Parts: sequence; C-alpha cells; structure tokens
Amino acid sequence: MAAEYLPPVDDYRFLFREMFGRDLVARSTDGAFSADDATEIIAGAGEFAASVLAPLETVGDREGARLDDGQVHLPAGFAEAYQAFVDAGWVTAEAPESAGGDGLPASIRAGLGEIWNASNAAFALCWLLTAGQIHALDAVASDEIRQTYLTKLVSGRWTGTMNLTEPDAGTDLGAIRTIATPRADGSWGVSGQKIFITWGDHDIAENIVHLVLARTPDAPAGAKGLSLFVVPKFLPDAAGEPGERNAVGPVAIEHKLGIHGSPTCVMAYDDATGYLVGEVGGGLAGMFVMMNSARAAMGYQATGISDRAYQQAVAYADERLQGPVLDRPAGTPIAGHPDVRRLLLSMQSRLFAMRALGVHLGDLFDRAAVDGTQALAEFFVPILKGWTTEDAVALTSDAIQVHGGMGFIEETGIAQHYRDARIMPIYEGTTAIQSNDLIGRKVVRDGGATAGRLFDAITETITTLRGLENPVATRTADRLERAVAAARTATASVLGFGQTRDAYGVSVPYLMLLGTLAGGWMHALAVVAVLAHETAEETDAARLVSADFYGAHHLPRVHMLAETVAAGEVV
Amino acid sequence: MAAEYLPPVDDYRFLFREMFGRDLVARSTDGAFSADDATEIIAGAGEFAASVLAPLETVGDREGARLDDGQVHLPAGFAEAYQAFVDAGWVTAEAPESAGGDGLPASIRAGLGEIWNASNAAFALCWLLTAGQIHALDAVASDEIRQTYLTKLVSGRWTGTMNLTEPDAGTDLGAIRTIATPRADGSWGVSGQKIFITWGDHDIAENIVHLVLARTPDAPAGAKGLSLFVVPKFLPDAAGEPGERNAVGPVAIEHKLGIHGSPTCVMAYDDATGYLVGEVGGGLAGMFVMMNSARAAMGYQATGISDRAYQQAVAYADERLQGPVLDRPAGTPIAGHPDVRRLLLSMQSRLFAMRALGVHLGDLFDRAAVDGTQALAEFFVPILKGWTTEDAVALTSDAIQVHGGMGFIEETGIAQHYRDARIMPIYEGTTAIQSNDLIGRKVVRDGGATAGRLFDAITETITTLRGLENPVATRTADRLERAVAAARTATASVLGFGQTRDAYGVSVPYLMLLGTLAGGWMHALAVVAVLAHETAEETDAARLVSADFYGAHHLPRVHMLAETVAAGEVV
Repeated sequence: MAAEYLPPVDDYRFLFREMFGRDLVARSTDGAFSADDATEIIAGAGEFAASVLAPLETVGDREGARLDDGQVHLPAGFAEAYQAFVDAGWVTAEAPESAGGDGLPASIRAGLGEIWNASNAAFALCWLLTAGQIHALDAVASDEIRQTYLTKLVSGRWTGTMNLTEPDAGTDLGAIRTIATPRADGSWGVSGQKIFITWGDHDIAENIVHLVLARTPDAPAGAKGLSLFVVPKFLPDAAGEPGERNAVGPVAIEHKLGIHGSPTCVMAYDDATGYLVGEVGGGLAGMFVMMNSARAAMGYQATGISDRAYQQAVAYADERLQGPVLDRPAGTPIAGHPDVRRLLLSMQSRLFAMRALGVHLGDLFDRAAVDGTQALAEFFVPILKGWTTEDAVALTSDAIQVHGGMGFIEETGIAQHYRDARIMPIYEGTTAIQSNDLIGRKVVRDGGATAGRLFDAITETITTLRGLENPVATRTADRLERAVAAARTATASVLGFGQTRDAYGVSVPYLMLLGTLAGGWMHALAVVAVLAHETAEETDAARLVSADFYGAHHLPRVHMLAETVAAGEVV
Repeated sequence: MAAEYLPPVDDYRFLFREMFGRDLVARSTDGAFSADDATEIIAGAGEFAASVLAPLETVGDREGARLDDGQVHLPAGFAEAYQAFVDAGWVTAEAPESAGGDGLPASIRAGLGEIWNASNAAFALCWLLTAGQIHALDAVASDEIRQTYLTKLVSGRWTGTMNLTEPDAGTDLGAIRTIATPRADGSWGVSGQKIFITWGDHDIAENIVHLVLARTPDAPAGAKGLSLFVVPKFLPDAAGEPGERNAVGPVAIEHKLGIHGSPTCVMAYDDATGYLVGEVGGGLAGMFVMMNSARAAMGYQATGISDRAYQQAVAYADERLQGPVLDRPAGTPIAGHPDVRRLLLSMQSRLFAMRALGVHLGDLFDRAAVDGTQALAEFFVPILKGWTTEDAVALTSDAIQVHGGMGFIEETGIAQHYRDARIMPIYEGTTAIQSNDLIGRKVVRDGGATAGRLFDAITETITTLRGLENPVATRTADRLERAVAAARTATASVLGFGQTRDAYGVSVPYLMLLGTLAGGWMHALAVVAVLAHETAEETDAARLVSADFYGAHHLPRVHMLAETVAAGEVV
C-alpha cells in the first residue's frame, strides 16, 4: 500500500521565492506571478493530487487497464478522478493562452508535472500526452483543426495520444510504414499498426484524438516522407460532438513491468479517417514539438516518482524500530542507522537537484518565449530527460533497500515505484537517443558554445560561494570548481571526436556527467540562498547537509565519467 | 519468454586452465583436478541446467508457488527437475567429503553455483539453502543429528531451510523471540513465528529440515541467548524415514517482486519438536557457518542472473534490425549501434569480473582448508556478496535498456531477471550488513593488514603487466596503479575513523570500491593470461577489449568512491 502523499510545497516555495527568486521570468515580467502566487498554485495542485489522484495509485497497479471487446476499461475511480481534474481547471490552467488556456508559466508547470506524476504516474501520463498534443497542434495546425480538435483538448473533454512507433520502427522513425491516402473530400484514409501507444484507448473521456505519423503515397523514403494526421476515435458530427466510430481501435494492450494503470495499446488503423496537420512531408516538425514537451515532462515524472518513493522510504525508516546502533540505544528507528541515513540522504539530495533543474528548465522555456533564444532550453531537454530518468531508477532502488526484506513484498507498495520507474529511460526516446541529440545537435553543432555558457554560469556561482564564509560553501565551491574543469575537458574530448563512433560510444556517460554537474550547480545555488538568510530558518541546516552530501557522494561521479568520455569508444 | 541458456564453459576453461591455472589449489594439490576435469564438470552441469532447469524458469515466474491447505505447491515440473538434479548426483557432488559427499573444491562449486542460478535462480535457492545447512551441520552437529539428518540432506532426499528472521528481528538477531523449551525426552518444544523463510515449505522432496534460531528459557538477552535447533517437517520414524507431521508449517507465502518460483514462507512453530544443534547459547556459531556459505553463494547467484540477462540482451541485439547508424547501413543489428555496444560491453566486462572473483574466492576457501588461513577468504565474502549483488541489479537494468520498449513487456522475459535480481542485495544480509562486517571485523580489527595483502597482490600483477609490451596491458597497469593508490588512501581513511559513524556512514561506498578494484584486478590477470598465448586464440581480442572497457568505464568508479569515503559521514 503506497504511503500518503505529501506535496513538496516547502521546496517549491524555496525555489520560487529564494533560490531562483526574481531571476525567474515568471516573477520578473510585468503582471506576472509573485512567489506566493506560484507556491499557492503548487499547494492547490498538491492538495488535489493527494486527495484525488494518490488514492488510485495502488488500484491502478493491481487491477490495471483491461481490454474488453475492443474497448479499454480503467479501474473504478479513474473516470471520476479525470473529470475532477478537468473540473478543477488544471487542464485549462496548463494549456497555452494561444490555445485558449490560462498559460501558466513553464517554471510552475514543472512543479505541477512533478505533482501529478508523484501522486499517480500512470494517470498523469494521460494528461502528459494530451498536453504534448496541445503544444503540437498549437504550433502547426490549421484554424479548422484548432477549432475542431484543439478547443476540445484544452477543455479537457477529449484526450490526445502520440502515434509514432511501429513493430519495425521504434527509434528509427524513417522506417514507418503506416500509410495515409488522400480522399476526394479532403480527408485521408489512414491504415497501419502502431504499438506502445500510451492511453491509446480508455473510457475516462468522451473522445480520443490520435496524432499519427504516416507516409503518403509516393512520399520519399525515410523521415522526410512522413506527414502528421489527427485521427479521432469518434468522428466529430456537424456540431463538433463525438459521432460515428472511426476505423481505429486497440487490438491488444501490453502486460508490462509497471505503470499498469496506463493502458499501452497496439492500435490498428483500417482506412481510418484522418486530417492532415501542417504540410505533407512535414510530419516531424509537429511531432518534435510534442516530443520536446513530452521529454521535459519526463523529467518531471522522474522527479515525481522519485519523491513518492523517497517519502515512503522516510516513513518506513522513521517507524521501523530495530537494533541498537553505535551511539544509539535499542529500539532506535532505522533512520538513525548510518547506512539507512546515507540512503535517505542519497535519495533526497538527488531529488532536490532534479526538482530544481526542472524549474530551471521551465524558466529557460519561459525566457525563450520572451526573448526568442531557445538554445539553453533545448540544451537542457535531453539532459533533464536522460539524467533524471536514469537516476530515478537508481533512487527507487534505494527506496527498496531502505525497506530491507519488506521492500521485495508487493503489498508494501514500494516495489511499484521501482517497476513504474523502469520505463522512463526508455520511452519518449531512450537515454541513448537523448545523448545523441545532446552531442550531435547541441554540443558539436555549435562548437561547444552553449555548453560553455552553462560552465560560465556555474563558474559565476562558484565565485559567489567563495565570498561566503561558510565551510559548506567552501567545500561546495572547491568540488564544483574541479567538476566544471572536468566537464570542460570532457566537452573538449567530445568536440575533438566530432560526430564519430568515439563520441556516440560515450554519449550517455557525457550526458550523465552534465546532469550530475547541473545537479551540483543547483545545490550550490541553494547554499547561496540559504546563507543569504538574515535569520536562520528551520530547513537551513538540512539544505546545507543535502548540498554537502551531494558534493561528497554524487558530484565525484563527474570525474569518473570524464575519464570514461576521454577514452572514446573502446575497440 | 526467457532465451535459451548457453553455459559459459569457455570462460571457466580459461579461468581454470590459464588465468588461475596451476595457482588453483584444486589443481596443485596431489590427486586433484586437472583443468580439463574441472571444465568437464562445468560443461556437464551446464548441459543439465540448460536442458532441465532453464525451461522451468518462466513457468516458475508466471505460476509461482501457491499455498493450499497448509501445503505449498510448486508449478508442474519442479518436483521432477529436483529428482533429476539429485539423480544426476549434483547434490552429493557438492557436499563435503566429511559429510559423505564427493567434496568438489569450492573453486569448481563457484561455477556450479553460477550455473544453477543462471538457469533457474528460484529453483537454485532450494539447493543453495540446503547446501548451507549441510555445511553448518557438518561443522557443529552431534553424531546422532549427523546420522538422522545430515545423511538425508547429502543424499538429496530431504532439503533444508534457514530460520532466522522474525517480524521484529531482521538484521537484529538479538531480538529473536521464538522460544525452545526442553522436554523430558531430550527433545525441545519450539514455538514462535519466522518470516521470509526461503523454500520454507514445498512438495518437491520428501521432507524438510528447518534450522531454527530460538531462545531457551532463562537465556540471557541478545544474541548470546540464542541456540540452534533442527525441526523437521515430518518427524523421522524408527527407521529414520519421514513419519508423523511435526507442529510446524507455512501460514502464508509472500507475493513478491521476483523469484516467484521460490516459495517465501511465514512459518508457524507451535510447540514443534526440535533437537539441539551444538551447545545451548551457541546458536550463532552454526548459523554463521550457514550464512558464510549462503553469502558466498549469493555472489554466484548474482553472476548467474547477470549472465542470463546478458545472454538475452545479446540475443536481442543481434537479431533486432533497426536504422542506419553512422558508418553502417540500414538494417544493421542494433548490437552495432555505439550505445548498445557500450551497454553490452558494460555488462559483459562486469560479468567476467564477477565470475573470476567467484572462482578466486572459492580457491581461497580451498586454500584455507589446506593451510588453515581463513583471513583472505573471509575478507572477500562480504565483498563478493555486496558488490556482485549490487552490480547485478544495475546489470539486469542495462539488459532491459538494450531491449528498448520491449524490455518493459513481461512476455519478453527480460524483466523477470530485473525483478529477480532486486532481492539479492537484501537477503543473506543487506549490503550494509556486508559492509559493516567488512569494515568492523575485516579491516579495522586487523589494522588493515589483510586489505594490505590484497593491495600487494594487485601491485604484483601491475608489475607483471609492465613487463608486457602491449597497449592494453600498459593502460590496465596505469589505471590499476591509480586505483590501488586510491584504495590504500580510502583504507587509511577508514582506519582513521575506527568503529565510528564516520566509518559506517561510508562503509557501503568502501565495499563497492574494493569490489570494483578486485574486478579490475581480475581483468588484469586475464590480460596477463591472454598475452601469454604463443598463438593467438579466437577469444583473445574480445578479452582484451573487455579488460580495456572495464578500465575505462568501471574502474574509475574507485576514485569517485574514494572521495566519498574520505568525507566520512556527512553531518
């Protein structure tokens, strides 16, 4: 049984008010959000998630989704929870203003993404994919499609899916074989099979809009021959309401290691009616908008699942009494044992780094919307996606370890997080795909300029730390200085390799290096913020210990990875 | 569906014939085994395991064990496989000569342990625990108990279990409350509840002998008050055959994350008839013999599960065609993609290191039996148990990653290894327990003398590498030299801390450091053996790449961990 969910409101208050403070675009632009506004939104979402979504997490895992007579059914409570989610205004709140939503800034949406996923990751995926489709249609769809589909998605009445993968076309989208044939009435007939379609079918909303990559007749081979289509489950009638059933449906759902409450469908398209989105042959453009949105959201999912596992480990360690331990008497909670404490700090310090980097990435997106400079935001997308999802797998494993033998028993509930987490480094592009994107498009292409900007920003923080007379600040500065130097060397190695097997043979270690470094930077910023307090706050000591722990246990990984990167591919 | 199992006969031949060669006690003592003898035993076990045990792995996972009316039932085929295992002589082969077995050397039993666990880890646990009990009874039991119980265990007709854990006494054995009351006839009445009892009940052998830690009336508090008892499921009749049912039985079986084919029981003892083993109050002595045996065996289980996951990843990567990749055309197997190749090498290079260290530990035990010096063997037990089981979790995760989205689908079979592996760093003493044992009893107690002997032995290998003119040998020597220096520094840190929270707060990182270093040493020995070939062999190039990869990707972790160890507990 999963533990109660406690929304991390204090951390977000600290991030919005102090650590990023007025540097946040969401706070510094006119008519924007105060730190209190932002925190209040987080607190409201947390309350909703804890009371409505979290209680369905276990039933989602145990009962899961089932396919019955061509229709997927979710466990009892999911439909009501979705309706409550829509009624509370969360769908509209997150949708962009240009699409009719409230347009919450991305720095706040980072927190919301964490919270939905922490309380119920399987459920959160439905909205995660819908949100991605909203961004894609908002970027590339015609007025007619905006009117018919986008408005329904933004209202929350319809949900969206992302249909890329086929049995022989996973990472290699160029191999897609689903075909779309033009019809006389301007619609297209879409035929083929898609696999691994998250929330591909369900019974919790009135209609489903599939965004489908398909090949048009006579299209060139490879990715350039792909176009994008919307294919609704029910064809809109004259009033725009769900009408006749379209020739698309789930033919199987997968029996998975985790996220059982999220139906993963094999979808069959049998001359289903679809409508072109954007230009013929321009399919990847729209899909990339959706993928970017989904990849950043994966970072929030990784943070959310990690927090839930961490919270349950803390609860267990505080309540489980066992053994005398060194300086403490028998009957001490195991949280006082040195190695349990190490595991908990290991989790917490990574979790904070992930959470902070998520807000930072959100802010970079908000900033790009103001000044049009996307480079740093796009630089961090693969890092956040790759690093947080890989670390979340390790972190949920630590949460099992804290439970000892109870961690292996399904009824305890902690194993669910471990099972759920394992998909994250795979879907929305494996870690290798993220790292190839990072090296190819974001490091080698601009000769390391963007990476250099990141290193310069970290160096600035180091200078600030040096001005603070505090042992943790000094240690953090020393460690970070060595880590930045290693990162610069590793980047030089990658630039030296260019786009060769030597680079791609160490691209994942390079991505993990940058993620680990960025996490250390986040902790450095936290140290600066804490030491700026005129009167010490209750959480100050814990934040300093967390930063110091990250510096002693996680940041040194940068040096290990730098040595690996320098070696290139081992042949 | 799990992939076919290919026994690693070539690796064992290399280990027995070349890498350890005549240094192996099993080969150097009079009348002992030739390398060919040893390899033949491995090949025979491999053939048996592949044909009889491996086919039951999937059914064990899917059907699992079930409790019905006070009796645990295993899936169809398990009983027949166990009988075949006994009939083929494997139980007797592994049992010590003093107990009536064939007394195979521990260096060969390391390989057998790997093979039983690779083919079917859930099944292998039954014999793993029985073997531990055989060693314990052989060390401490009276002639009467040897006659009644040990002979039956060695014949394979009865199996054994290890009953320590209670709901409030896991790691803290001193808290055990099960009570044993003496009876007039010399037997004892045992009452209490034990949990997490592996193969605590089943229907694949005619009787089960429970080895139970219990407290006698008026015994002192804590671990010193514990005595050891055998409690059979069926009381032996006058002829020594299973007779009346004893008052012990399973009251529940656990619903676990993995190893579903291994029944994990809650056992109730209700004034069950037991017989004292060893002295009153001397319970831990016998249990420690069993635990040492089981802990070393965990290293072999970790190697086995890792190999099975690795083999399946290789099979998938060789057969899955996708995408063009840099210098290779479309339709290339994904094994040719740089990051998939990295994952496979990462797995293979760790796997070889684990396997080799398992044989080395076996040899140290064989050596101790000859010359009575146990120190190095006992030094390596917690390292092998802790390091291989933690790395096996990471390795099975890599095996999922190679499969991409298919890795998350249960039917693929790879997720089973990931689920099965997760218990290994927990049972038979968590990694923290191993690391506390390592630091407390094996490093601090002798002032680092045994650790120093290990470092000296590695330094000798480095000197040998320096004499070989080969770039991999040179790189390996350079890397290992820096790693040994870091390990010496880390050991000095630990000795400086003494038995304090500073030491126990970094004991797991210290254990992982030594395990990683030992793995690098194993690869260095392999490089020496390969370069001694007068005519190059087919596998030489792969062994050098594997060593070089380990040096570039895994060994640098030593430096990361040394930095962590130096920091002590972060407060």
